[in-house]
Amino acid sequence: MVELSKNYGVFSFLIFLLLSLASQLSLARPSKELKPCKHIVLHMHDVIFNGNNSVNATGEAVTSLVGLGHFFFGQVFILDNPMTKDQNLLTPPAVRAQGFYFHYMKTGPCAGMAFTLVFNSTESKGTIDVMGSNYFPAKTRYLSGVGGTGDFFMARGILEIETDGIVPFE
Amino acid sequence: MVELSKNYGVFSFLIFLLLSLASQLSLARPSKELKPCKHIVLHMHDVIFNGNNSVNATGEAVTSLVGLGHFFFGQVFILDNPMTKDQNLLTPPAVRAQGFYFHYMKTGPCAGMAFTLVFNSTESKGTIDVMGSNYFPAKTRYLSGVGGTGDFFMARGILEIETDGIVPFE
Amino acid sequence: MVELSKNYGVFSFLIFLLLSLASQLSLARPSKELKPCKHIVLHMHDVIFNGNNSVNATGEAVTSLVGLGHFFFGQVFILDNPMTKDQNLLTPPAVRAQGFYFHYMKTGPCAGMAFTLVFNSTESKGTIDVMGSNYFPAKTRYLSGVGGTGDFFMARGILEIETDGIVPFE
Repeated sequence: MVELSKNYGVFSFLIFLLLSLASQLSLARPSKELKPCKHIVLHMHDVIFNGNNSVNATGEAVTSLVGLGHFFFGQVFILDNPMTKDQNLLTPPAVRAQGFYFHYMKTGPCAGMAFTLVFNSTESKGTIDVMGSNYFPAKTRYLSGVGGTGDFFMARGILEIETDGIVPFE
Repeated sequence: MVELSKNYGVFSFLIFLLLSLASQLSLARPSKELKPCKHIVLHMHDVIFNGNNSVNATGEAVTSLVGLGHFFFGQVFILDNPMTKDQNLLTPPAVRAQGFYFHYMKTGPCAGMAFTLVFNSTESKGTIDVMGSNYFPAKTRYLSGVGGTGDFFMARGILEIETDGIVPFE
Repeated sequence: MVELSKNYGVFSFLIFLLLSLASQLSLARPSKELKPCKHIVLHMHDVIFNGNNSVNATGEAVTSLVGLGHFFFGQVFILDNPMTKDQNLLTPPAVRAQGFYFHYMKTGPCAGMAFTLVFNSTESKGTIDVMGSNYFPAKTRYLSGVGGTGDFFMARGILEIETDGIVPFE
């Protein structure tokens, strides 16, 4: 239904979560510099649907290309990506990243992203909401953590993102 | 244009808004636990367009299904839903919820949502911005309130959501 | 692929950014009223793709109209708009607004917007994330600034928007 480029495949990202939690902020003494009070490291795996991999796929294009520039301008992807504590895609996920991204640059590969990190383990339960701009060629990119629920009640902070690896479809 | 399942119809949600407002936060003494300082209870009514109900419809699918899993993966809905103080869909709305949601789970009915609550009455004027993940089978779900304007200037907090009822199309 | 109305063209917006920055908030004495500590004025230019203007276009419809009401209900646009310090579209942009908007009102021209302001100059580097509801007929509209990175680390605040001008396609 939606034609996918053969260049798509599996994208892996290394993500550092630097958070300020509401419950901790209220206890903190005012300081000259706000320091994040929680630091989480996760690996996100984005397996794009190519028509044949429905068992493994975790993301999929939901609109067609519209022909502006050469970097997928306008294409929207929806995702439910596993996030693991190590680099292995097959490790049971610690978190799921549920949301979407869309390509929006005529001159390079750049995606706007908005997703919710869903924690549902004995270790932590709750969500963190994320939004921002991900310019893939940059070594490190930053997204904003804009809110949260449960153990991450009213969390704020940033996500540092680096590309772990890209495996194109054969 | 977009094929809708006959299972769609009218969804009603009971929503508890628990907010911290910027103006009130700045006056608050630091406490061990942040307590929301404003509590609003509303009922949201989501009437999906089925091709024949354009007078009543308040939401509509804007992308087609893409065939991943059996829970509408990838389908995006746009909404302008009335929110009332009681359960009655016909009560004049106190608030409108304007935004979108998209299904993103292969294994169950789960939607990512992002919408703006628009208050425009003598009682209160302003907006609250909401985002998060809504897993319908759970009794209670939580979304994040991430910002606001007007009477809700820089508001933060959470929304507790419960399903009031579902009326399928005949 | 996506049919565009001839009424579309170039939209210009005057935007006032009123921000509270995390680093400055932590130093502030509590006061009865939170005052924004940073004030930025910018002009956004939204040049819609009409099939022939791919060199100049900065935004494009990525879904088709779905027939609910007469105000483009459900149509999603993706944008990478330049923002300049003066009203001139040709001034080198100080900031880029990267994100999307979608029309969601049956009875008037109203768009939900979510975008990231990307600052990348010697003056400032970082991002500000924005979301909210933009009802075009109102003289002034307000969106929420819900987060930020870099020089705008954990920024919050509001955007005041006014329409500068609309130039329809010939």
